[in-house]
Amino acid sequence: MEFTTAPADAQRPAPLRTRVTEMLGIDYPIVQAPMGWIARSRLASAVSEAGGLGIIETSSGELDAVRREIIAMREITGKPFGVNIAQLFVRDPSIVQFVVDQGVRFVTTSAGDPTKYTRQLKDAGLTVFHVVPTLAAAAKAVAAGVDGLVVEGGEGGGFKNPRDVATMVLLPLIAGRFDVPIIAAGGICDGLGMAAAFALGAEGVQMGTRMVSALESPVHDNWKQAIVDAAETDTVFLNRFSRPGLRALRTARTTELEHQEHVGMDEFGRALDLYFGGDMEASVALTGQVAGRIDAVRPVADIIHETMREFRERARLLAAHA
Amino acid sequence: MEFTTAPADAQRPAPLRTRVTEMLGIDYPIVQAPMGWIARSRLASAVSEAGGLGIIETSSGELDAVRREIIAMREITGKPFGVNIAQLFVRDPSIVQFVVDQGVRFVTTSAGDPTKYTRQLKDAGLTVFHVVPTLAAAAKAVAAGVDGLVVEGGEGGGFKNPRDVATMVLLPLIAGRFDVPIIAAGGICDGLGMAAAFALGAEGVQMGTRMVSALESPVHDNWKQAIVDAAETDTVFLNRFSRPGLRALRTARTTELEHQEHVGMDEFGRALDLYFGGDMEASVALTGQVAGRIDAVRPVADIIHETMREFRERARLLAAHA
Repeated sequence: MEFTTAPADAQRPAPLRTRVTEMLGIDYPIVQAPMGWIARSRLASAVSEAGGLGIIETSSGELDAVRREIIAMREITGKPFGVNIAQLFVRDPSIVQFVVDQGVRFVTTSAGDPTKYTRQLKDAGLTVFHVVPTLAAAAKAVAAGVDGLVVEGGEGGGFKNPRDVATMVLLPLIAGRFDVPIIAAGGICDGLGMAAAFALGAEGVQMGTRMVSALESPVHDNWKQAIVDAAETDTVFLNRFSRPGLRALRTARTTELEHQEHVGMDEFGRALDLYFGGDMEASVALTGQVAGRIDAVRPVADIIHETMREFRERARLLAAHA
Repeated sequence: MEFTTAPADAQRPAPLRTRVTEMLGIDYPIVQAPMGWIARSRLASAVSEAGGLGIIETSSGELDAVRREIIAMREITGKPFGVNIAQLFVRDPSIVQFVVDQGVRFVTTSAGDPTKYTRQLKDAGLTVFHVVPTLAAAAKAVAAGVDGLVVEGGEGGGFKNPRDVATMVLLPLIAGRFDVPIIAAGGICDGLGMAAAFALGAEGVQMGTRMVSALESPVHDNWKQAIVDAAETDTVFLNRFSRPGLRALRTARTTELEHQEHVGMDEFGRALDLYFGGDMEASVALTGQVAGRIDAVRPVADIIHETMREFRERARLLAAHA
């Protein structure tokens, strides 16, 4: 006798309506973070196909490659996706026209002044969210007219404000002051974190480290395995007193760098040898504290759909206390 | 015409049942943190009277004063309260008999080996929660037979593991591994944080900075005002590479100390001149990141009852997504 399982689509959780899903035209308010070199069509299309929002990065600075990835996205998926403009790395203002020309509908801007591109992007009809690590940055972005915010707690991986503030404090602080829709980032890898983020005022979540470790992520298996193996204490914060602040996986290299008052970009080493060559000491593996909660490499669709089921389960748990 | 408001008791929120409230015999699972010198009868009795759990500190090391405070608690309130045994500061093992002799029913142990006092305290019929900053510490405490855990995220104020982990990551990690009841600490000052903590697996919350800033807190108004004035980025973390790690309010003094690889206890200065004299540069004001969310000095009962109302409001918000 044959054993059959229901087709994947039948197991898809029901869509969730929030201002974020309405604005972006997606089923689930789960956004993939724009990791440099990693957030390309293979990973981003898996996220969009699963009902979340894939985002293509520009922080690699490789705009020719980015253009090809955006074209690839349209070939792979008919679902919505976004592009991140990492202002620290993409200094040429033609990036705006570039994004508009690709027909992109949603942009997150980060690591820079929100007044720089917001008006131009919105005039071209795009939806713009700005990534903020503090209340002051949020105030500036809202004043610049953004449609929403990505509020990023300091427990997350990657580029950070040197004065890091945890999601538990930052998110409700900002959500309580401004009425724009918020996507919470930093410390979130599942439906428990998503439910907590909603309790704190978010209407969507962004996952970085969880997506780096996903099956469809293009990084070397050594990095994925290092995330699976990591304890919650296995990240370091570099450049606490200068920019760019960074959270990364604890390795021999980063454990040394952690003691330096300043780590220059030139000291980060050969990123691609780590990302795709698997040499974990060749550079700095940008990774958040949630690495300590990730214990398997899993397909993106499983991650997103399980997150939605867990989210609803936790919502019911809270409902029992209402 | 006279304007009257309902009596305070009529506005008291309904009790909440969790394993924490059942174990401790309290109405609301809101516990006050055991701040040295501060967590004494005036503040702790206000918390217990309001339906939460006040805790008397021992980290000041002033056991004669502590004894008087415990006696005072019995005079002021008939409600349950607890005592914290801060093992780093109270090295005399007679502390256990001391606590037992005072008729205390609930103890939190912290900053030390959970195997040291747990058995003795439990044999004497007390309920014991151990404070943990990592998964490994939680495993050790559960193996030692504690009744529950206080899981303390690195965004909180005071003594910290040098490798700090945010509540958003630490709490669900520990709650997912052990079935003991958990009180969440670190980054929580209201019902939003409480609802988030419950979503992450807690059955109670602990508040430190919020209680330091409360009307009934004995600290100098200068410290309370500094908390009210603080931005979310206005804390520093001292001793990232040695013990004791500490989170404190950013002042001229702590901004300097922050750059030192190690800050010895002798460099902390004259604590009581800061705590009760109001000289904010005399020492180190142990304070969590939630200072950035606290904008008024308020009576303990208002804080606790509003937290419960906010908690239920957020639970209803989540329920709408269930």
